[in-house]
Amino acid sequence: MRDHGGNIDWAIAHYGGDAADWIDLSTGINRVPYPLPAISPEAWTALPTRAATASLVEAARAAFGCPAAILPVAGAQAAIQMIPRTTAPGRARILAPTYNEHAAALRAAGWQVAEVGDLAALEGADLAIVVNPNNPDGRRHSAEELLRLAGGVTRLVVDESFADPDPGLSLAAAAGRPGLFILRSFGKFYGFAGLRLGFVLGAEEEIAALTEMAGPWPVSGAAIEVGRAALMNRDWAVATSARLAAETERLDAMAEAAGWRSIGGSALFRLYDCGDAAAAQERLARARIWSRIFPYASGWIRLGLPGNAAEWARLAAALA
Amino acid sequence: MRDHGGNIDWAIAHYGGDAADWIDLSTGINRVPYPLPAISPEAWTALPTRAATASLVEAARAAFGCPAAILPVAGAQAAIQMIPRTTAPGRARILAPTYNEHAAALRAAGWQVAEVGDLAALEGADLAIVVNPNNPDGRRHSAEELLRLAGGVTRLVVDESFADPDPGLSLAAAAGRPGLFILRSFGKFYGFAGLRLGFVLGAEEEIAALTEMAGPWPVSGAAIEVGRAALMNRDWAVATSARLAAETERLDAMAEAAGWRSIGGSALFRLYDCGDAAAAQERLARARIWSRIFPYASGWIRLGLPGNAAEWARLAAALA
Repeated sequence: MRDHGGNIDWAIAHYGGDAADWIDLSTGINRVPYPLPAISPEAWTALPTRAATASLVEAARAAFGCPAAILPVAGAQAAIQMIPRTTAPGRARILAPTYNEHAAALRAAGWQVAEVGDLAALEGADLAIVVNPNNPDGRRHSAEELLRLAGGVTRLVVDESFADPDPGLSLAAAAGRPGLFILRSFGKFYGFAGLRLGFVLGAEEEIAALTEMAGPWPVSGAAIEVGRAALMNRDWAVATSARLAAETERLDAMAEAAGWRSIGGSALFRLYDCGDAAAAQERLARARIWSRIFPYASGWIRLGLPGNAAEWARLAAALA
Repeated sequence: MRDHGGNIDWAIAHYGGDAADWIDLSTGINRVPYPLPAISPEAWTALPTRAATASLVEAARAAFGCPAAILPVAGAQAAIQMIPRTTAPGRARILAPTYNEHAAALRAAGWQVAEVGDLAALEGADLAIVVNPNNPDGRRHSAEELLRLAGGVTRLVVDESFADPDPGLSLAAAAGRPGLFILRSFGKFYGFAGLRLGFVLGAEEEIAALTEMAGPWPVSGAAIEVGRAALMNRDWAVATSARLAAETERLDAMAEAAGWRSIGGSALFRLYDCGDAAAAQERLARARIWSRIFPYASGWIRLGLPGNAAEWARLAAALA
């Protein structure tokens, strides 16, 4: 298994304590989740109906501003697993460094994978991957840049797992163009990573092929009900985006006061150069705060946002 | 989309009423589900940890009596979708008639598919599928027969989605033999079809390949917690198996009194020849009871078991 954020059980085994003692900032998952709505008994007991799935898709279409076909899947990760298998493997290029599951899923499906450093170098690929905003460094690309790129590759996957707080960045309105796949996560912004829900937005025929691959019941009844309720609540989304924007500034200020240099990030996580990331991770871990570091950049440490005043205070103390 | 049981929304649209008015007997899902346990907040908000997934696998191993590798997936259906894509397509043979998603998933992955009528005709296949007990007719094959068959095919998939009430029928104890994949459903026997949980039992390397294809978080936090609690409760499983055995006799007697001929089935569904299945389905539907009929056998109707005294009474009245 590749290294990820979210490996909090490893941290507990290594540094001690109980799960309840730890603040997991190793992911970009919102720690103030959408309030869990009531879930109907049928969501547990019955196979999800086509009507229920259609109602979730309608909510997603409105929330994302997407006129095109949408397939709900068990997390954006499920789409990362499937898309490389929808066509014969060829030459893939990934704007790197980024979320490491893209390269892994492509290689497992037989693709040749090149990791490149700028958008122009993706041109000519049979399949190109851009995470926007990027994880972990927050690089951003405009819709115009990405649509120009889409014209120069056979397939373009734009992973918008962290785009919810910044709808202006999304290509969702352009979904439907053949060869363009847009991935959305539900779990990160809404704080429901355990629910396993995400979406693929795309052209009708390509979404139909993914639907055939995913099978008739790819997401749970609870994911349909919770997802629909949350996506329809635009007030919560607006308020949450505003809170996250303010709190990223607070986190950057706290990190910079500790001598770390801000590199970037999204509204759900921040990336810093702290010189010796392994030492910084260990120091935070002794305070039962888990962070993410990267094998390819020894100075980089990524932090999600604390979820309440007590967590902010503990982080401030650990960084002081 | 292929026709399935569980298309209750179609029945409601066609015949009227509200969902609450209907008794859905069109599936083999137990209508007396395992009591929903408390679900931890982390099951919703956090990515499932490796430790949590491992604890579910341990529970499954004990419940199924399986010494080999086990991968939890989002329903046995998810395994049906994936297994055809783990190797280059060749010639598949399916013991038919049976659950139609096997053939569909194989064809979508590029396999040549032949449906055959007896176990001997599966010999020589690159991939053979046996549903045991079979859906919809309940045909059963002993472990000895199936292990002999496993020696005569490259890969054998035994779909035990309905085997829980009859553990003696399961090949789980023989899992681990290369080329043998055993599928288990959680949703049917435990009455949790909306949870999307199932398992693949198999040889270590083949399960490792499926794990790579499924990705790091294929099942939800709720599926892990509910699945683990239910699989560890063997008393419930024993009591439920006894109840189902008694109730299948009751349903057969009721159907036979109505002039239907019992063909077979499992402890979770029964198949009858009623002469004109379309007419029988319509008659039951007017009483807001949904059943399953089959495009290839005009006399066949399949019924799941009613879930309580009121449902039994309504079925008795509709059949009288």
